[in-house]
Amino acid sequence: MSLDFGPATGLSCRECGARYPLGPSFACLECFGPLEAAYSFGAVSRADIEAGPANIWRYRSLLPVPEDVADKPNMNPGWTPLVKAGNLGRKLGVKSLYVKDDSANPTHSFKDRVVAIAVEAARNFGFHTLSCSSTGNLAGAVTAAAARAGLDACVFIPAGLEAAKIAMARVFGGRLIGIEGSYDEVNRFCSELIGDPMGDKWGFVNVNLRPYYAEGSKTLAYEIAEQLGWRLPEQIVIPVASGSQLTKIDKGFKELVALGLVEDTPYKIYGAQALGCSPVSGAYKAGHDVVQPVRPDTIAKSLAIGNPADGPYVLDIARRTGGAVEDVTDAEIVAAIRLLASTEGVFAETAGGVTVGVLKKLVETGQLDPDAETVVLNTGDGLKTLDAIADGAAPTAVIRPSLDAFRATV
Amino acid sequence: MSLDFGPATGLSCRECGARYPLGPSFACLECFGPLEAAYSFGAVSRADIEAGPANIWRYRSLLPVPEDVADKPNMNPGWTPLVKAGNLGRKLGVKSLYVKDDSANPTHSFKDRVVAIAVEAARNFGFHTLSCSSTGNLAGAVTAAAARAGLDACVFIPAGLEAAKIAMARVFGGRLIGIEGSYDEVNRFCSELIGDPMGDKWGFVNVNLRPYYAEGSKTLAYEIAEQLGWRLPEQIVIPVASGSQLTKIDKGFKELVALGLVEDTPYKIYGAQALGCSPVSGAYKAGHDVVQPVRPDTIAKSLAIGNPADGPYVLDIARRTGGAVEDVTDAEIVAAIRLLASTEGVFAETAGGVTVGVLKKLVETGQLDPDAETVVLNTGDGLKTLDAIADGAAPTAVIRPSLDAFRATV
Repeated sequence: MSLDFGPATGLSCRECGARYPLGPSFACLECFGPLEAAYSFGAVSRADIEAGPANIWRYRSLLPVPEDVADKPNMNPGWTPLVKAGNLGRKLGVKSLYVKDDSANPTHSFKDRVVAIAVEAARNFGFHTLSCSSTGNLAGAVTAAAARAGLDACVFIPAGLEAAKIAMARVFGGRLIGIEGSYDEVNRFCSELIGDPMGDKWGFVNVNLRPYYAEGSKTLAYEIAEQLGWRLPEQIVIPVASGSQLTKIDKGFKELVALGLVEDTPYKIYGAQALGCSPVSGAYKAGHDVVQPVRPDTIAKSLAIGNPADGPYVLDIARRTGGAVEDVTDAEIVAAIRLLASTEGVFAETAGGVTVGVLKKLVETGQLDPDAETVVLNTGDGLKTLDAIADGAAPTAVIRPSLDAFRATV
Repeated sequence: MSLDFGPATGLSCRECGARYPLGPSFACLECFGPLEAAYSFGAVSRADIEAGPANIWRYRSLLPVPEDVADKPNMNPGWTPLVKAGNLGRKLGVKSLYVKDDSANPTHSFKDRVVAIAVEAARNFGFHTLSCSSTGNLAGAVTAAAARAGLDACVFIPAGLEAAKIAMARVFGGRLIGIEGSYDEVNRFCSELIGDPMGDKWGFVNVNLRPYYAEGSKTLAYEIAEQLGWRLPEQIVIPVASGSQLTKIDKGFKELVALGLVEDTPYKIYGAQALGCSPVSGAYKAGHDVVQPVRPDTIAKSLAIGNPADGPYVLDIARRTGGAVEDVTDAEIVAAIRLLASTEGVFAETAGGVTVGVLKKLVETGQLDPDAETVVLNTGDGLKTLDAIADGAAPTAVIRPSLDAFRATV
């Protein structure tokens, strides 16, 4: 089998640095640490990137994908808007604020980015079925990408997810299996299935394809820097579920510096959690280096991972960069969804309520500098979590079609 | 008041050609015909356009907007994917098929395009409130755009719309008024309101701002041609509600030819309606030039306009270009939504089920050439019309987290 992962040359352990050949492996045989893609980057210029397509493939020379990736059937996510959020900034007292709005992706969450990379890995390894454990958004991203790529799909979710996420994961075809239990139980089940003959030739995007998949999140860092005019933001607020996205955005910023594509300016990374699933912010506030698993209970179901694999790395990055990890209540999440919608016309899912709510709290508690340029991530779409705003989701008034009836409402 | 509408120099009557100055006018004082924007275009090259932003403002020199439009707070819609639909094409027997997927717009329908232009008109005329009559998508596009632009919003919908569309139209703030009646009654009510002091300084995007608003649909034609490598498609299938979008896509193609941006190659335009609201396809099949109003009864609520203002123009364009107007049943709409999703990973709202269903029917009845390059429009998002696919929107199976339980499902 001849593999083509573009600039990626192997896998390396994030803990002990042991090297492995490119393959469907995800844990170090020496120390059980997570494996990640290792590269040998060629020279890459801003102009090369700017000449690329308006999607993540403009960064193909920095990702584990073949050079001709854009010619294959794929969802082509990315290059989502970086919205100058002047109205929200004024409300919060933040001088220069941007919302990176990843609800603009094909299935309306940032998961399209990571799945697009995983599809190329599945093709490389000759897998016929695309799979995952999911809190909802990933399931839809995987089944959609499998449909377009001509792969089978079988995805696993906690049975109690939002109706819209279930419907979306199902409409693209393939099998959708509800598991009686939390996301962490779904995840453990998938790890078992990988070792079973039933799971042979299956690419679990966030398990055995994770070293490739996870690299997709770097494109958020690349896009933010390019959209700011090739510089790093001073502060960025990122949601924390497994913690992978936050660590990869940090990695992406560092790569841009190392490649000479941006200046080496300091940035602070802030993690955002829902109080009802806040193992990382809990550890941050307690001054711990390890994360104690919790049983999630929050409306922010897409962030409801009680045992986050990359929790310790998030703690390290937040402390090293001078950021923080903070959490908000479900009521604060709902208020933040409404605040973002009514100031910027961006309708976020609960995860976006978490980041905007945490941003507000960070400003109010003096943990974030309101005079420094700040980016806040919205990673999903409000149409998928309508229950969160069910109160007040009816018309202001219902009237007969007459001027008198309307006058009476004013 | 100094107006800046870029290349637009006035309004002209589509029927009698009478000219009017730029203003919030929409009907000819001579013959009551609809007014549309008239331009004096300067020289525009492909390179100028390609150097622009990845949204509709790359075409600002062909739209009634100021040159600096991209610097103002606006939703910046457009440059949505033209998906090469190889899987769907094989299923339908269409050799070269593309889906123009406008669900990728900020509020996930093509309405963001038209509203973005109307916002600039509202600014020009000093209006403080943005309004509309809407079948759902427009209401969300207007309230979102008003939030970002810092305008008030008051929008009017039939009270019986889909829950997701109501929730979305409300979350951005402003007033959302449900009218007891059909869209056509909502529309008549808005026309009354414009003449009343209550509606003073209000911009009804699809009434008194319609000559500007409607021009936004031209950008669909521009994008399709540019994304095909600066040429016109041979066949295009477009949904018909009021008919405005179809007429403006035709206008956009003609402008590109006149400006020398594409070759003058023939194209056929097909209109698509739901059988439950098919006044235009009914007239087409009966060989009539005028359209008899109907009372809509279809799941395709975004197309449920029983008295379509541009119906006669649609008939003329379909006949002149060698296209057709066809309709499909609600069951065919649902089947087409599933077909598009499972082949291309694109989750369309009911209007997208109408265009894909009509495409299928046109092929089967020999009205469309399966060997000619074809574009089909998806103008909205499946997450807004979840009821249409409620059957089969549950997991394939719900199981305990064990391999044995999973084995039993296989």
